[in-house]
Amino acid sequence: MGINENVAKPLDRLAGLLAADMDAVNALIRTRMESRHAPRIPEVTAHLIEAGGKRVRPLLTIAAARLLGYEGTHHQLLAATVEFIHTATLLHDDVVDESRQRRGRPTANLLWDNKSSVLVGDYLFARSFQLMTETGSMRVMEILASASATIAEGEVLQLTAAQDLATTEDIYLQVVRGKTAALFSAATEVGGVIAGGDAAQVRAFFDYGDALGIAFQIVDDILDYSGTTETIGKNTGDDFRERKLTLPVIKALAAADQAERAFWQRTIEKGDQRDGDLDEALAILARHNAIDAARADALDWAGRAKSALSALPQGEIRVLLSDLADFVVARVA
Amino acid sequence: MGINENVAKPLDRLAGLLAADMDAVNALIRTRMESRHAPRIPEVTAHLIEAGGKRVRPLLTIAAARLLGYEGTHHQLLAATVEFIHTATLLHDDVVDESRQRRGRPTANLLWDNKSSVLVGDYLFARSFQLMTETGSMRVMEILASASATIAEGEVLQLTAAQDLATTEDIYLQVVRGKTAALFSAATEVGGVIAGGDAAQVRAFFDYGDALGIAFQIVDDILDYSGTTETIGKNTGDDFRERKLTLPVIKALAAADQAERAFWQRTIEKGDQRDGDLDEALAILARHNAIDAARADALDWAGRAKSALSALPQGEIRVLLSDLADFVVARVA
Repeated sequence: MGINENVAKPLDRLAGLLAADMDAVNALIRTRMESRHAPRIPEVTAHLIEAGGKRVRPLLTIAAARLLGYEGTHHQLLAATVEFIHTATLLHDDVVDESRQRRGRPTANLLWDNKSSVLVGDYLFARSFQLMTETGSMRVMEILASASATIAEGEVLQLTAAQDLATTEDIYLQVVRGKTAALFSAATEVGGVIAGGDAAQVRAFFDYGDALGIAFQIVDDILDYSGTTETIGKNTGDDFRERKLTLPVIKALAAADQAERAFWQRTIEKGDQRDGDLDEALAILARHNAIDAARADALDWAGRAKSALSALPQGEIRVLLSDLADFVVARVA
Repeated sequence: MGINENVAKPLDRLAGLLAADMDAVNALIRTRMESRHAPRIPEVTAHLIEAGGKRVRPLLTIAAARLLGYEGTHHQLLAATVEFIHTATLLHDDVVDESRQRRGRPTANLLWDNKSSVLVGDYLFARSFQLMTETGSMRVMEILASASATIAEGEVLQLTAAQDLATTEDIYLQVVRGKTAALFSAATEVGGVIAGGDAAQVRAFFDYGDALGIAFQIVDDILDYSGTTETIGKNTGDDFRERKLTLPVIKALAAADQAERAFWQRTIEKGDQRDGDLDEALAILARHNAIDAARADALDWAGRAKSALSALPQGEIRVLLSDLADFVVARVA
């Protein structure tokens, strides 16, 4: 099977290849979201977890473990763990961002209330730690505890950095690691660890997940200024309206003249936005080739993800992980 | 030193006896609340953690380990862990309850915002798991992960049960275990585990913390109907105004006639409260000796806490833990 013929859907192909594992993961998720005392917990969790997310993170954990030939079942516990952590962060993010829609459905904070989203998120965090203790691997606990801290730290950083024009690409990267890459890299790394990978292999899995997550988030930021509602599932310009300082704007700011700087100060820093401002933002981004520069960064990170794979055994899963890196950036290529 | 002379302040005496450990715990807390990237995190954490809380939970962990003659330093890591989990739950509780004051100071959600409280709480949860991995004890991780799940579950249960007149004393106990007792019992249990206690000793520590926490919460609920602003640091009747179905009301409901039942339905279930309703509630509670019955329960739980100690080595710490159980209920005796 050639790579190019099937590059469009590497995630679906991974899911097909690893279907037995993923069935077990989904069964675990359903069992472990139960609460003997508080039926609100599985209600809220199921609303989000059964909304048709792609299970990218658990797939990465399963793929990493299987790529190293793992034959046990602890990778399934870890895949469920990773999905619980992800779900908990989504519940809390939607409270923090006051979001009303997620995956095309009303958010839990809208359907129930902020209280339920905060507390059910806490429950899923705790459950995720219970799940990972069942593997008996202290190394795995360290990785996932550290990733959880990086996620929360990145989100707090975003609170203060998002509207601050002094935000550098370094700070942006730190935020992106928190928002996306920390859980991607933890997902692949723990898959490698549980399979007994050596230090170089575990490092390769970390690097792959980290670079894939960063590429993914940069693409998301680019599409927010260049995509269509159909391709991105939300409206163009949401980040601009929400005054989020993303990579294209950071790049345009570095080359801004005085008038442009005043424009970003007014629209992003002060939040004083008027009709036509989004078009003006797009014109400034185009003038400095900021979208192209961000695209080049995304392609670079996808390349790094693929390079990391060279330290790992060859095989169909490795090919699909490489295709996935291509696929992530194909949306803006 | 006789017990009775000093029964008033067993916590202070424990803190004095264990001052060297507690200094180390406080130093750990300060170091580990830092964030390399997000200064908002230590700001919010310090606001709460330095507001003069009594460090009851870390003291319990240190006391339990030392009572078994532990000479290492891992009990300090666990004490800091327990305080971080407690602080995280306070941050989230204040968001959920929309509280404006805590320990006599404005809450973090008021000084900063709900977003910061949610995310800094998440950070502290993650940090607490990082801290506990440093002990290398999988049993400790299981206990604290399970306690965290019970806490969140109890809080979710309270969301739905608090205004439901069908709430039984069993459900109330489950809520109380989540609100208070789960972290008390985990604090003492992990102290016993890290000190290498045998199964009977570890069980005794769990039972002591569980019973102490339940006694503590029942006393809190009683004082809300019978205390003064000075003794309880908040206004009498807050639970009634916030429509919380606590033990005295559950007991009065069990003996209610039709008119009384209608009163509780109107005031608690529907939240339609008028002038004079608090006085009427107090009169109904008095008519059924509901406060006395709740007080008897609190004394019973304090007695259970003291009984549990009999399985543990004698010594000054055990005397102080016993005094602490007496002290907790002395506020309503």
